Amino acid sequence: VRVPKQRPVPGEALDAIVAILELVRRGRAHSRTELIERTGLSRSVVTQRVNELLARGFLVESVAPSTGGRPPRQLEFRADAGHLLVADIGATSIDVALADVTGRILARMGEGTDVADGPEIILARVDRLFERLLAEYPVRGELWGLGIGLPGPVEFATGHPISPPIMPGWEGYPVREHFADRHQVPVWVDNDVNIMALGEWRDGLAHGQRNFIYVKVGTGIGSGIVSNGLIHRGAQGSAGDIGHIQVVGGTGELCRCGKVDCLEAVAGGAAIARDGVALARQGQSERLARILAERGAVSARDVIRAARSGDGPALRLLDRSATLVGQTLAGLANFFNPSHIIIGGGVANAGDAYLATIRQVIYARSTALATRELLVQLSRLGNRAGVIGAASMVLDELFSEGQLARWIDQGRPAALYGVAA
Amino acid sequence: VRVPKQRPVPGEALDAIVAILELVRRGRAHSRTELIERTGLSRSVVTQRVNELLARGFLVESVAPSTGGRPPRQLEFRADAGHLLVADIGATSIDVALADVTGRILARMGEGTDVADGPEIILARVDRLFERLLAEYPVRGELWGLGIGLPGPVEFATGHPISPPIMPGWEGYPVREHFADRHQVPVWVDNDVNIMALGEWRDGLAHGQRNFIYVKVGTGIGSGIVSNGLIHRGAQGSAGDIGHIQVVGGTGELCRCGKVDCLEAVAGGAAIARDGVALARQGQSERLARILAERGAVSARDVIRAARSGDGPALRLLDRSATLVGQTLAGLANFFNPSHIIIGGGVANAGDAYLATIRQVIYARSTALATRELLVQLSRLGNRAGVIGAASMVLDELFSEGQLARWIDQGRPAALYGVAA
Repeated sequence: VRVPKQRPVPGEALDAIVAILELVRRGRAHSRTELIERTGLSRSVVTQRVNELLARGFLVESVAPSTGGRPPRQLEFRADAGHLLVADIGATSIDVALADVTGRILARMGEGTDVADGPEIILARVDRLFERLLAEYPVRGELWGLGIGLPGPVEFATGHPISPPIMPGWEGYPVREHFADRHQVPVWVDNDVNIMALGEWRDGLAHGQRNFIYVKVGTGIGSGIVSNGLIHRGAQGSAGDIGHIQVVGGTGELCRCGKVDCLEAVAGGAAIARDGVALARQGQSERLARILAERGAVSARDVIRAARSGDGPALRLLDRSATLVGQTLAGLANFFNPSHIIIGGGVANAGDAYLATIRQVIYARSTALATRELLVQLSRLGNRAGVIGAASMVLDELFSEGQLARWIDQGRPAALYGVAA
Repeated sequence: VRVPKQRPVPGEALDAIVAILELVRRGRAHSRTELIERTGLSRSVVTQRVNELLARGFLVESVAPSTGGRPPRQLEFRADAGHLLVADIGATSIDVALADVTGRILARMGEGTDVADGPEIILARVDRLFERLLAEYPVRGELWGLGIGLPGPVEFATGHPISPPIMPGWEGYPVREHFADRHQVPVWVDNDVNIMALGEWRDGLAHGQRNFIYVKVGTGIGSGIVSNGLIHRGAQGSAGDIGHIQVVGGTGELCRCGKVDCLEAVAGGAAIARDGVALARQGQSERLARILAERGAVSARDVIRAARSGDGPALRLLDRSATLVGQTLAGLANFFNPSHIIIGGGVANAGDAYLATIRQVIYARSTALATRELLVQLSRLGNRAGVIGAASMVLDELFSEGQLARWIDQGRPAALYGVAA
């Protein structure tokens, strides 16, 4: 199945520029000779177009260290030709970053928050964080675009949140417009787990993989999906919402979605905190009872700490969470046949035993073929996956065939503002 | 995430030919004027390339009925420029067909078989069916390629079956080479459920959809997945294998895979037949007891017929199957967010109640967002989906950017034999 490609911009000169820029940017050609080989264009056309890209500041030419003979000149994409601003807005925290136009994170900043405060308050905080970031880290080159992650489903085409369960007030809010109007550049908005998957694709354990799942086990549980090398967002942008899959062997726990035995309601951080309180009240865990008496509350983190110190009931609670996450992922491994399942989020970092249980259940419950080369690993990027992925998303979009042709001849991505994004 | 595209063949003339042929073939341009608009090429280049394609017999020019003024000339892709041979090899039947190079099925033929007879016997039968087809339906134009579906996982890149559970003797068998060497044309081989999904995409209820799942509930249970408009085959080619997902509320039924409570082991046609025998033995269903006494066996079809005639125990058996299929699909709807779930296969055609139950369970157990616009429908193509999809697969591959550029200048897809496929 192939969807016909648009060729929206005419002009062979532009085609050549686009092709050359992409080959150099992706590191697939480093010299005029390689460009001639890869594009099939003549030497004179390649020379002319490369000179144009050098003059516009998109490419830079360096002399590579030589082992003898004439030192070869190397063409490179200019990382500081522009910069990007990205934000990963989570349920309880905001991470923002400044990236160069190769997607490298130059500076990063974050603070705690509550997404339920609503879009006006949260987005104003993001604006202030962006200002601080730019004040502390002055950049050359202009702003090329913004990338934003939100902790709920997003209609990718419009950049608006849809039916966000933990985000009252956000439904349909014009998040894209908020940033686009302020900065007059194109803006892309996506679900936080999708951008974390992109981050893992770019710099993490799933680097360059074409079929994998990123799973976040935090307060809630969600996943980001890469299929055939592309983010799979689904028909309404809600793909990856595994927190409400019914678990095998549930005991009727009510979920905030109104159904029972949802994975999130029995295995997520909020469920672990709830069950931790119960363990404390019933006197099953002395340690948790002490915390409850002292602070009036027990968090998932408290349960994880108790488990680390050898508290039996806390250990069993986490083991049940890992087992149910593993069972759900076992089914998804059969369905999706990923090469990697990368697991992140606060609960997933409970300890080695948590990952070991997930792995064991997946290997026990999936088909031999689905697990033959499957790797189940803890994310090494942690929270950074979000901002790395958001920068990657902006570059993917800016340099997509259609978009690149639309702005390159005007020399700046800002030309897309109000047109493309 | 985007994987850089190869531009393997140089030459702007070839590029223009490829672009023009694709635009006309996909019905996106019908005249030289439209081609000029869409490609950005000059009138003289377009005229020259179109003339070449007319001379080579790929395009044909017709005069469209006019409503006045000069009748416009219409460019069309020549459907009889060549032909395709396709086969959908199932567990118990072989369907073969002859298609034109727009993918339209010209003639079709089938017979019962048992895939467990092994590759030599089965492929020889396919060869004979192809011969009969060509003898009864003489075609103009040469053979462009073959498409084959197999009832198990296939490594798409090599066209070899991998770990096929119901296909002893097929593991690693060179199915592609068998046909390619015989006909000296390129051959593509895929899982039968994947090609059925392609068939539904081309001519069925999921026509043109970018994210959907095709589910076959027959003797076994499997699915074909389309993500972002592309077949999702997964890391090892086993994606869609939903028959071995553990069901909620299983009672410990042993599956042929060695695990318990697999969907297929409790809800597939073989399971229904097994449970039908039990109903007959226990005297719970008089009707099934009579069939067992007469024939010594009860098939899934017998259970379906008994249910249709109002037999209570048979009805409950099918209702349980539909409920468990629905529960599994509910979880997958959350994960994948498809626009359509198309259901086919012998058991799925048990009757309206079967589909109604599946639907009801999916809507009850998936998130509101995942089901907001989800359509759950019975396939109207039935078995034909296989051969239609196989023809579609061959054309997708022949006209993919890389492949098309490799054979178009030699004028015939057979040039790919031994190179590409």
